[in-house]
Amino acid sequence: MNAPKNAFYAQSGGVTSVINASAAGVIETARLHPEKIGKVFAGKNGILGALNEELIDTSLISAADIAALRHTPAGAFGSCRYKLKGLKENQAEYERLIAVFEAHNIGYFFYNGGGDSQDTANKVSQLSLEMGHPITCIGIPKTVDNDLPFTDSCPGFGSVAKYVAVSTFEASLDVASMAASSTKVFILEVMGRHTGWIAAAGALAQPHAQGAPHIILFPEVAFNQAEFLQKVQNTVKQKGYCVIVVSEGVAHPDGRFLAESGLRDAFGHAQLGGVAPYLAGLIKSELNLKNHWAVADYLQRAARHIASQNDVDQAYALGKSAVELAISGKNAVMPIVVRDSHSPYRWHIEDVALSKVANVEKKVPKEFISEDGYGITQACREYLEPLIAGEAYPPYKNGLPEYIQLSLQTIPKKLKETVI
Amino acid sequence: MNAPKNAFYAQSGGVTSVINASAAGVIETARLHPEKIGKVFAGKNGILGALNEELIDTSLISAADIAALRHTPAGAFGSCRYKLKGLKENQAEYERLIAVFEAHNIGYFFYNGGGDSQDTANKVSQLSLEMGHPITCIGIPKTVDNDLPFTDSCPGFGSVAKYVAVSTFEASLDVASMAASSTKVFILEVMGRHTGWIAAAGALAQPHAQGAPHIILFPEVAFNQAEFLQKVQNTVKQKGYCVIVVSEGVAHPDGRFLAESGLRDAFGHAQLGGVAPYLAGLIKSELNLKNHWAVADYLQRAARHIASQNDVDQAYALGKSAVELAISGKNAVMPIVVRDSHSPYRWHIEDVALSKVANVEKKVPKEFISEDGYGITQACREYLEPLIAGEAYPPYKNGLPEYIQLSLQTIPKKLKETVI
Repeated sequence: MNAPKNAFYAQSGGVTSVINASAAGVIETARLHPEKIGKVFAGKNGILGALNEELIDTSLISAADIAALRHTPAGAFGSCRYKLKGLKENQAEYERLIAVFEAHNIGYFFYNGGGDSQDTANKVSQLSLEMGHPITCIGIPKTVDNDLPFTDSCPGFGSVAKYVAVSTFEASLDVASMAASSTKVFILEVMGRHTGWIAAAGALAQPHAQGAPHIILFPEVAFNQAEFLQKVQNTVKQKGYCVIVVSEGVAHPDGRFLAESGLRDAFGHAQLGGVAPYLAGLIKSELNLKNHWAVADYLQRAARHIASQNDVDQAYALGKSAVELAISGKNAVMPIVVRDSHSPYRWHIEDVALSKVANVEKKVPKEFISEDGYGITQACREYLEPLIAGEAYPPYKNGLPEYIQLSLQTIPKKLKETVI
Repeated sequence: MNAPKNAFYAQSGGVTSVINASAAGVIETARLHPEKIGKVFAGKNGILGALNEELIDTSLISAADIAALRHTPAGAFGSCRYKLKGLKENQAEYERLIAVFEAHNIGYFFYNGGGDSQDTANKVSQLSLEMGHPITCIGIPKTVDNDLPFTDSCPGFGSVAKYVAVSTFEASLDVASMAASSTKVFILEVMGRHTGWIAAAGALAQPHAQGAPHIILFPEVAFNQAEFLQKVQNTVKQKGYCVIVVSEGVAHPDGRFLAESGLRDAFGHAQLGGVAPYLAGLIKSELNLKNHWAVADYLQRAARHIASQNDVDQAYALGKSAVELAISGKNAVMPIVVRDSHSPYRWHIEDVALSKVANVEKKVPKEFISEDGYGITQACREYLEPLIAGEAYPPYKNGLPEYIQLSLQTIPKKLKETVI
């Protein structure tokens, strides 16, 4: 009987606070099936690790350290922004990948990423079959943007949503308590280049923070400057203050991002975006209202300290399920979360073909955005609420979380050429 | 025997995630001494509540709701940015304050704020004595900036420090895992207009995040652009990435804030600051390094979800102590935290005269800043570490903290005139 095939696991694209929980799910589950899966190699810096033959042997990592990945944010093995081109444009790259897999007896490819990554995994599956060295390719969903189709939500999103909801709640209390004599408007800029899922999560603070946030700006709704300013002014008049949560991807009706509105410094250098400071400037110059703004940027997607328990559980379960699907003989699929009920929140895992997932972007649907375009509907609230439920605190020592940082030793290379 | 005098409690200036814990300390302790203190009135929106005779009767608030203040951020009674002028310039304002106190049989004034507030409390004490209606005035320290003298630290600071240390740690892991193919430099802007205590706290992530953050910029150190850029470039070369924590108050050698560097939008409108986007623009234009930036703004000082247990404990203890000092006959003093030892961290409470505290700003001392000006020393680390220790999580329901929001009913006015 042949030795079991090894597996290759890679993290792809922007990291999240729970992508390592998926890694833990993959590695711990593979370790339960030594008769089916040999070693799990992790790509150093994602798919670049395969292309450069930089493979981390996870069998050398202790069970305790793998378990600690479950509460550690960011990409423990390194991730990358590197999209393989189409098969026709750069078949050599795919062939290189498959050559590396062949050299290390890799028969399973677990790719933990967003839509592009699922597309890549699908192509590797097809091409490897054509080349006579079939690789079982399973995608594992991951994206803070929550923009993958079919799955109820994407691991990473629930925790960002919780961070944004909690932060909006806290900042709203702050502004409310000072507004009589100080700041009237607060703007929180959150991620979401094309979809407003993260901004929508800010609205979860609403019933708790006595009406705040008052305005949500979605990329799905074209920015109407006059209407927006009117709404800010009315809110300040009626409530005494106004809290705004804005997606980085909010755009003018002609498609230009607000964040690319041509800021220049004193020397005329073009300034990097930030839709929050843009809106702050607008509110100051047009309404003369004192305002403050925050840009959460990486803090939001790295905030494992305030991760959602449901999100961590799903990230782990999807990693685990990916391995189980592979072992059961499935190929070119991605496990997804299917919701059974809102309250109590119940879910189970199914799978869909990668070909269906690839390059489909799930936007916030119309029925989730309130009629005026500045808030969420009850349906959206019901969808979002379970995703932020539960606190999955990491362990602490001396005031700081005990996140694990692995030493990433790669195994000896077997191939001569390098491509990247 | 006369009825005991009532007390007036007010929150002042920028709020924090633990100022309500001080309020709970004041109110709960006063309730233990009904023979000495009658009702505790809270000023609606701080000292404005006294000037406008808008007094909240805290005796109507349940014990459970007062207890919940201990885990609720921001100013539960409202705060304000309103500085009373000097006695000579506006004695009428002080006289009005004392008239309101007299009308409501108020004999105790607890003022929860920074240096300006301690100065005000001191003046009220003096003038009320001269006017024959002596008020016992006790200051309660509060400032995220940690800039009050005598006290080991200021309530509010430890929790911001924890937020900044944890966030810097998390964002550093994020950047490190992506740097091979993506963002090389990350900049986190934190509060601190005149002092770098909060920025210094970012350095607590250092031994944990494998070297990051690499650069701390303090208001206490004049910005040297060429040297800074060189250091960023060297760090990226050596480590692959660079994490920077910058105080909002960092200034050029001539004293101009970096954040006031004349940003203009496409229409020529002056843009509100942000030292982080300023540095980001500089790093992009001068070094052509891909970077990201975050501005924490109110999120940091409102972040009760990641408050330091020691900070919460001290905030409460100082409120409690203020009442005990008043009852024991002290006047025109402020309770302070005195550190007995770093490790194990031990502290006790003493008090100092308000006259000594007023308008003194404690900056980060030279021996706490590393020789090159971009980091902290071991002495600074020993000072800071206990301040962020312990997690004081609020209770949660459906994924969000259960922060209390009081309904602020004011009592009937007794005076006719209003001044504000």
